[in-house]
Amino acid sequence: MKAQIISIGNELLIGDTVNTNASWLGEFLTGLGFTVTRVHTISDGLQIIKDTLNQAISESDLIICTGGLGPTHDDMTKKAVAELFDVGYKLDEQTLEYVKSMFKKRNIPFSKSNYSQAEVPENAEVLFNKAGTAPGMWFNEDCCIAVLPGVPYEMKYLMEKKVSEKLREVFGDIGYVYSHYIKTAGIGESTLSDEVLGDLSNHFQNGVSLAYLPAAGGVTLRLNGHGSTKEEAKQYVQALKDIIYQKAGKYIYGEGKDYSISEAVGKLLKEQGIRISVAESCTGGLIANTFTDVPGSSNYFKGGIISYANEVKVNQLGVSEKDLVGVGAVSKEVALQMAKGVAERLGTEIGISTTGIAGPGGGTEEKPVGTVWMGFYKKGEEHFAIKAMFTKDRLINKERTKMVLLEATRRILAGIEEMPYDLKKQLS
Amino acid sequence: MKAQIISIGNELLIGDTVNTNASWLGEFLTGLGFTVTRVHTISDGLQIIKDTLNQAISESDLIICTGGLGPTHDDMTKKAVAELFDVGYKLDEQTLEYVKSMFKKRNIPFSKSNYSQAEVPENAEVLFNKAGTAPGMWFNEDCCIAVLPGVPYEMKYLMEKKVSEKLREVFGDIGYVYSHYIKTAGIGESTLSDEVLGDLSNHFQNGVSLAYLPAAGGVTLRLNGHGSTKEEAKQYVQALKDIIYQKAGKYIYGEGKDYSISEAVGKLLKEQGIRISVAESCTGGLIANTFTDVPGSSNYFKGGIISYANEVKVNQLGVSEKDLVGVGAVSKEVALQMAKGVAERLGTEIGISTTGIAGPGGGTEEKPVGTVWMGFYKKGEEHFAIKAMFTKDRLINKERTKMVLLEATRRILAGIEEMPYDLKKQLS
Repeated sequence: MKAQIISIGNELLIGDTVNTNASWLGEFLTGLGFTVTRVHTISDGLQIIKDTLNQAISESDLIICTGGLGPTHDDMTKKAVAELFDVGYKLDEQTLEYVKSMFKKRNIPFSKSNYSQAEVPENAEVLFNKAGTAPGMWFNEDCCIAVLPGVPYEMKYLMEKKVSEKLREVFGDIGYVYSHYIKTAGIGESTLSDEVLGDLSNHFQNGVSLAYLPAAGGVTLRLNGHGSTKEEAKQYVQALKDIIYQKAGKYIYGEGKDYSISEAVGKLLKEQGIRISVAESCTGGLIANTFTDVPGSSNYFKGGIISYANEVKVNQLGVSEKDLVGVGAVSKEVALQMAKGVAERLGTEIGISTTGIAGPGGGTEEKPVGTVWMGFYKKGEEHFAIKAMFTKDRLINKERTKMVLLEATRRILAGIEEMPYDLKKQLS
Repeated sequence: MKAQIISIGNELLIGDTVNTNASWLGEFLTGLGFTVTRVHTISDGLQIIKDTLNQAISESDLIICTGGLGPTHDDMTKKAVAELFDVGYKLDEQTLEYVKSMFKKRNIPFSKSNYSQAEVPENAEVLFNKAGTAPGMWFNEDCCIAVLPGVPYEMKYLMEKKVSEKLREVFGDIGYVYSHYIKTAGIGESTLSDEVLGDLSNHFQNGVSLAYLPAAGGVTLRLNGHGSTKEEAKQYVQALKDIIYQKAGKYIYGEGKDYSISEAVGKLLKEQGIRISVAESCTGGLIANTFTDVPGSSNYFKGGIISYANEVKVNQLGVSEKDLVGVGAVSKEVALQMAKGVAERLGTEIGISTTGIAGPGGGTEEKPVGTVWMGFYKKGEEHFAIKAMFTKDRLINKERTKMVLLEATRRILAGIEEMPYDLKKQLS
């Protein structure tokens, strides 16, 4: 079944707003088995909305239209739809009462323009929107059309709670697509695809497909399966998933589109009943921040020392002044001392550290921008540093340092010998 | 002059990639005085690319087409354009040599498909792309068409260095739009627009316009001016800018779309020759990370202590155990002690601190999720805490705490008495 998305709003055309609604809808509709053939992004203009709707109707079975439903005069979508179908308006009592009650709560006077929020074209089926004041609308004419507010959480609420129901009603025969995400780190996309996983095409029956989504420091694998039931689609994906785990298990830190490396490390720390602390120089708080983005991280993350100045490395972490002068702050010695120092001073079983030249300035012939040392200390068990050469870009260097060090930590906690990107453990 | 954008790539339709190219192009073209009337997002299909190009040609003076220029068989854009104009291909020697040299550098064998990278439709003017392997193309037929790679930095490079030149050549009479961004913090959008700035419409001559772009903890003002020369457009904006500074000066921390609050604080610290350190509990490293995202921050940012566990607050910051038990970690007392403690132990003139309940768990009747105390200490001058109640969302609470505390710090450094959102300074 073919679907098209119409995103309405001047702010999208002049670049004030990135069209994240369209990508969310694209993923949602693909997941239901629709093929999204076009996204039209257009202005709040009466004629262009009507023309675009007509074009989309001629090209597709389903149209999701978002934006331009506000109470102000520059919101044209409702008028365009009414004119398109050549119908008048009807009042939706439920919406009117709801909008009135919301205004009452906030002590805002209820105006004529607010009243119009509750009016919809006569042929519309109202999709009640308890997430906002503008109702969604469903039209089942030559083509199915859902007209939704542009506010992302209102649009998502209506898609998940109301529109998907209507879609099952009308397109009962559409299959189910099940998408699953596997997150890897510490291995490059080409190595993962060419050497580790190899050609998996003979496993791509039943519309199962695999996509590589690379990002700084990790590659996400997206598995899609298509079945007549959700369970069936899930089974197909599971079969491919098993093979991927057999071949690439040690590079996988978790599952789920937004699952983070700090969650993976946290999970292992919690299971093993141990705690971690961080000593950050070049990452400057990024790693601590990543840990503390995760709810419940206080169970295993005790804290950190951001030792941006050498003086702080000496006084707060016990780094040797001799080494700072001798081999310099960006060195194996200092990385090792920072990791051990933070673990001992904060009283954690594990301490990790970063020291490097993030850039753009500060590089030398011998230690160019992108040179990073990472330290790892586990009481009585492990104490080593790894060296990496990253890029000329400050923020990418911070991000990649975080990913490599946290993946190294995950692998040690999981009993995996191989370090990210095959980096060598360098002992003191 | 009307412009349309055509974004090509299946990844955009299934939601794997958000179409940031389109918003960047929308802003870029608007800035040059074009009216962007549509963005077409379509798949890598030969026919749909041709159809969409034909539609766009009939509707606009300029088309920017991105994506689908890779070497693989699923990249169709070049073929579609050649078929559209019914022309063959020519080889671009410069591109061929460049691609070969790039492959040599990386020791990758040069294949037939790579050769085709250097071929372009006969009627194309090549826009040499030193940022990648796929050349950009310029067509000046019934309508001007720029065909560019989808990789964002390659596309931006070609737009800024090559396409804008061509646009001046062809659309010599287009005016100039000058956009300028003013960043404010610590004041709500409605207060800023209704009470502080008021109705500025009588200053909106010469196509000068003002837009409010709200985000967590701050509102960005976008000023646009249109003139026959860049200088003229700039003058119009300057006039409005002066009025905004007169009315809202104390809420403005800087200028430029991506200028950050940590840069503003850093600038003042540098000017005053003093340094700062941070003691973070609920923000968990976010503030240190924000400081260290700024190149050269080592000149004024000395480091920080992430005291997630109470034990760390006591041992590393000298917070009183009595207070932690008595009034609790989320309290004025502890915020004050953390700020002073970090400044003294890290040896900086200024210390700032955060302690709060980020959520989702950990809330109580008396201290619900979103309760945050922020501390400020300046040796011999200031020592106070401010309390705020934020949201139920962990990440929003971290972000807003960061913005409020850094804006409070900026105002003190700038000699402004009023605290963000009129929060009260609470002394020990």
